[in-house]
Amino acid sequence: MSLELDAAGLVAFLEEHFPQALATGFTIDHVGEDGVSVGLVTDDRHLRPGGTVMGPVLMSLADTSTYLAILAREGPLALAVTSSLELHFLRRPRPGHLVAHARLLKLGRRLAVAQVDIRANGEAAPVAHGTVTYSLPR
Amino acid sequence: MSLELDAAGLVAFLEEHFPQALATGFTIDHVGEDGVSVGLVTDDRHLRPGGTVMGPVLMSLADTSTYLAILAREGPLALAVTSSLELHFLRRPRPGHLVAHARLLKLGRRLAVAQVDIRANGEAAPVAHGTVTYSLPR
Amino acid sequence: MSLELDAAGLVAFLEEHFPQALATGFTIDHVGEDGVSVGLVTDDRHLRPGGTVMGPVLMSLADTSTYLAILAREGPLALAVTSSLELHFLRRPRPGHLVAHARLLKLGRRLAVAQVDIRANGEAAPVAHGTVTYSLPR
Amino acid sequence: MSLELDAAGLVAFLEEHFPQALATGFTIDHVGEDGVSVGLVTDDRHLRPGGTVMGPVLMSLADTSTYLAILAREGPLALAVTSSLELHFLRRPRPGHLVAHARLLKLGRRLAVAQVDIRANGEAAPVAHGTVTYSLPR
Repeated sequence: MSLELDAAGLVAFLEEHFPQALATGFTIDHVGEDGVSVGLVTDDRHLRPGGTVMGPVLMSLADTSTYLAILAREGPLALAVTSSLELHFLRRPRPGHLVAHARLLKLGRRLAVAQVDIRANGEAAPVAHGTVTYSLPR
Repeated sequence: MSLELDAAGLVAFLEEHFPQALATGFTIDHVGEDGVSVGLVTDDRHLRPGGTVMGPVLMSLADTSTYLAILAREGPLALAVTSSLELHFLRRPRPGHLVAHARLLKLGRRLAVAQVDIRANGEAAPVAHGTVTYSLPR
Repeated sequence: MSLELDAAGLVAFLEEHFPQALATGFTIDHVGEDGVSVGLVTDDRHLRPGGTVMGPVLMSLADTSTYLAILAREGPLALAVTSSLELHFLRRPRPGHLVAHARLLKLGRRLAVAQVDIRANGEAAPVAHGTVTYSLPR
Repeated sequence: MSLELDAAGLVAFLEEHFPQALATGFTIDHVGEDGVSVGLVTDDRHLRPGGTVMGPVLMSLADTSTYLAILAREGPLALAVTSSLELHFLRRPRPGHLVAHARLLKLGRRLAVAQVDIRANGEAAPVAHGTVTYSLPR
């Protein structure tokens, strides 16, 4: 198994096709054969009153980390689209440095499936866990 | 079955607890015994390059419409939190007026479950469909 | 929209390809443009000690009703396979006549998505609700 | 973290409360702090014509392994019930020795969430992956 895009290649892809991911504050923390990690240091834009990280921020982390895990393996498939996203919210995410790790369970010709865990950086217990599927254009 | 909050009551709740939902452009289009509909007229903030509505916007519509369907029945439970969200993306959502309708399938003491359909306003075929669960504080 | 297979055609298909569905006691209660309903009158084989219908029986009803809803529209695609199944258990299912209704939300070239509701026959509130996806061979 | 029930304790529990799990051929292959593995050597009862393992067999493995992972930690909670099951079918499962491993992601007072991977014994790539939640009586 080899990688088609490294972290710099993924950032260049996002700059061209999904500038809002970078504008949101997403960073690419790890790219490897075990998957891709996307980080976010939360600020006021990402929080609900009371200081909890907003659900859609976590969903977006899950979606983006899966997308980048596919691109790392397949190269720049701009037209890959999410076909389903399922996320379980396990613990209240505190503000700070969050990391979403997406690991591909299947990378078929037409469908990719990844498991995603989101953790506060350095913690063992995930704050969210789910499965994201992408439909791949060929 | 009676409703604890009508559309005006739900807007007042959002203004106090989730001002970002209103700032995003969400509107409350319908509140009834069959559930709650949340609308959004998309603009550039909600679109990916190429003009598709971003996935997290749809996820946020699904989450918010479920939350409001619970509040309409139960009153202002600020501490209800999403425990899971699962969304299938069925058709490419075009820019325009989207409507998410959440219908409660179960409203228990500790858990609420809703089915959500998101459609372009006036269209029969949904662009997304899923199930959202909330944990209820008592 | 027209149907390729009616109830008799679906039974003939099951007899040839999935005799165990009929052996389990599944019946085809309705075939229409709105989807397919599969019935089951539970007996001891389907119950846990204490008299609750076993979860896998409900999952099998959800899966089979979706499969038949696809076949009714597409004809005998023996090689269609479940790609995901997600089911929420809402109420304790009592023994008796259960009906699973699968309604296709999307029937694409490669993927079909159905929403499934399982009810005690004649009851309004579902005992289970979920989404089932199939990968279609072409 | 300590375990309330070991493999022998779990088998005794199944004999009393879920004899059909053992009658189906399920075995308890591993009980540890990392979760519980349930095995099944498939025979004709578990196969579709053509030799694929039936989907409901995999769903039942996912459900049962999660249930036992909860019991190993909590002791004999006969009244814990599945509240949702979501399973992605990744590869065609061949007949033989299947192993489902359930790992608890959250064990709260009212809700438990596990991730489940099902593999052919000794293979790295899972044939199915999903998330199962249980509602816990207290």
